[in-house]
Amino acid sequence: MHSMNLLTFADTRPQYIKAAILSRELGELMRETLVIAGPHRDLAKLFAGFIESPKPRYDLGEVAGSGCERIAKYMISLEKIIFESEPDAVLTFADSDGTLATALAAAKCGIPIVHIDAGLRTHNKNLPEERNRIAVDHISNIFFCPSATCVENLEREGIVKNVFLVGDLMVDAVLMASKIAILKSTILQSLGLQEKNYLVLAIHNERTVTDRKTAEPVFAAMIGSGKRVVFALDQCIEKRLDSMGLMEMIRSSANVVLSSPMSYLDFIRLTLSAEMMITDSSVIQREAYILKVPCISLREESEWPETVDDGWTALVGTDGKRISEAIATFEPRDIQKAMFGEGKAAIKIARVLYEVLNRMTAGADKPGAIPED
Amino acid sequence: MHSMNLLTFADTRPQYIKAAILSRELGELMRETLVIAGPHRDLAKLFAGFIESPKPRYDLGEVAGSGCERIAKYMISLEKIIFESEPDAVLTFADSDGTLATALAAAKCGIPIVHIDAGLRTHNKNLPEERNRIAVDHISNIFFCPSATCVENLEREGIVKNVFLVGDLMVDAVLMASKIAILKSTILQSLGLQEKNYLVLAIHNERTVTDRKTAEPVFAAMIGSGKRVVFALDQCIEKRLDSMGLMEMIRSSANVVLSSPMSYLDFIRLTLSAEMMITDSSVIQREAYILKVPCISLREESEWPETVDDGWTALVGTDGKRISEAIATFEPRDIQKAMFGEGKAAIKIARVLYEVLNRMTAGADKPGAIPED
Repeated sequence: MHSMNLLTFADTRPQYIKAAILSRELGELMRETLVIAGPHRDLAKLFAGFIESPKPRYDLGEVAGSGCERIAKYMISLEKIIFESEPDAVLTFADSDGTLATALAAAKCGIPIVHIDAGLRTHNKNLPEERNRIAVDHISNIFFCPSATCVENLEREGIVKNVFLVGDLMVDAVLMASKIAILKSTILQSLGLQEKNYLVLAIHNERTVTDRKTAEPVFAAMIGSGKRVVFALDQCIEKRLDSMGLMEMIRSSANVVLSSPMSYLDFIRLTLSAEMMITDSSVIQREAYILKVPCISLREESEWPETVDDGWTALVGTDGKRISEAIATFEPRDIQKAMFGEGKAAIKIARVLYEVLNRMTAGADKPGAIPED
Repeated sequence: MHSMNLLTFADTRPQYIKAAILSRELGELMRETLVIAGPHRDLAKLFAGFIESPKPRYDLGEVAGSGCERIAKYMISLEKIIFESEPDAVLTFADSDGTLATALAAAKCGIPIVHIDAGLRTHNKNLPEERNRIAVDHISNIFFCPSATCVENLEREGIVKNVFLVGDLMVDAVLMASKIAILKSTILQSLGLQEKNYLVLAIHNERTVTDRKTAEPVFAAMIGSGKRVVFALDQCIEKRLDSMGLMEMIRSSANVVLSSPMSYLDFIRLTLSAEMMITDSSVIQREAYILKVPCISLREESEWPETVDDGWTALVGTDGKRISEAIATFEPRDIQKAMFGEGKAAIKIARVLYEVLNRMTAGADKPGAIPED
């Protein structure tokens, strides 16, 4: 078996975390070239106190422009990187525009594509992420599914070869981080919070704050809840809220505790002791589930229906009344089914990947090769 | 119902032909903006003597670079065109890199995507065209299938909504062209050919002439057949053959009749009277079938298994011995099932498209819209 060379691309916070967790297991088995991009890529800050921050070999920066331009620019950069680093396979996570660009560049270069978080579906094709993940799955070659539902989704779309149910890398990360966070993080003290006596509001999706009509009822419900609400907001969301004239209302409310974006460890600590999580992020919805914190999702559908079906997530959309009601009344089930694996996804992915790639590069079914007679 | 505005993209010879045929029927029902690109886009010459050549509003030229760069550059240009022309939908044919770029740009802009020739599959993902067509199908919204097999292929991949079996636009074109060609074309006289007394060799795929080991046996089989072989070659293929040192052998052979690329009408006339077609093009394979000319395909699989199953195409790959044997012995079946419709695809597509688009733009299921609560 020759020494494998993997190119990994990550361009969002959850993708950096998954890449870091996976990289620790891959290190023993293959060389890895990490490429990062995106607006929040201060990895040293993100991983502070948790694990060693991965070292990207290429940083594409924060690419400006429309979604279309970003994908185009990423593709051109990634093709050059593929030529330079000659990977045996390209690994890409989830469903961002960068994920799609990576898969397309690899497909055009004839390099096998490994998709982590394959098979996630909201069944709402109006969401750009849904179109990204479907397109990526259909040009990928090796599929790592975090849940049985994802395997079934792929099967329904005719994808059955090289599909592996391995659990979710975020479970590995969350379980590992929560142990360390309890010992090391001082975020509760810094923000003056008491155990199970506050809500966390986490809005990562610009769609939620696209117009005042959508955003205002959400914040009104927070303020009206009478509970302490920790709201960690980044510059991008802050600007949006400011331009809609909502920041003043938020700043002047007595019960909202504003915070700047946190390290991963601090955020896990914050979640761990929260009474409830309120979010539009499917990633945070899942983190809350893993940490056994009830979650109110500000959406109408979910990439992770399992957490809803299991009674730990309430889907309420962005209607103020429904949010207030959920804060007042939502109770999770006593018992969790814990459907996302036991935190061994990284080691499973690393082992399977090593075997499958070795088989592929040795065998005749190398994707992209010109078919022989 | 408001006046529809359709953006149509075409970047290969068969796509120009389909666009022209469809455009005649769409003209009554909606405005159409035609965008073309690609190396062979002299439409006036292509359509000489046949039908009025469509007038492109945008010409992206022959975009240089790798497949990756081409897709990226197309995407950036197409996004600008979409902003300028504000189409209600984008229409794209088959499986070229331009097809994929168009679909991606439209998806990113939230414009419904109409895919003509949806559902074609060779089931060989090593072919770039196969990856293109699969990706395009999975981000498209309205699907026009040329055959029942294509409908089944989509169904197997979970695509069942807005799928329409309409037959093949190439049948419309070939049937229309063959009637006119018999009256107008003088190509047989110009090349000194007699009815059913020559073979046609049509190589459009660079893969066939990628290396000498593949190309030489093909030409040796032609020369060795003892039959007159008409070989229409474009500059791109000629350069390749020259650089491999094969053009001399071809030029000096007594039975090969070289010709420059022909108008559509002349090529249809040439095919109509050929004893046999020898090609690596699935489009020409289908044209031969429609014109009831036996076809030897220089490939191992086909997007149009129907012509193989019906006994009119022999798949022989690029092995010299198999090609020679097929030329000597291949006999088509007496009767054809004529599975590609009766030449009414354009009118069916135009009518269905008009209805579906009107329903879409009026209704709630407009793709790309931000979901409402």
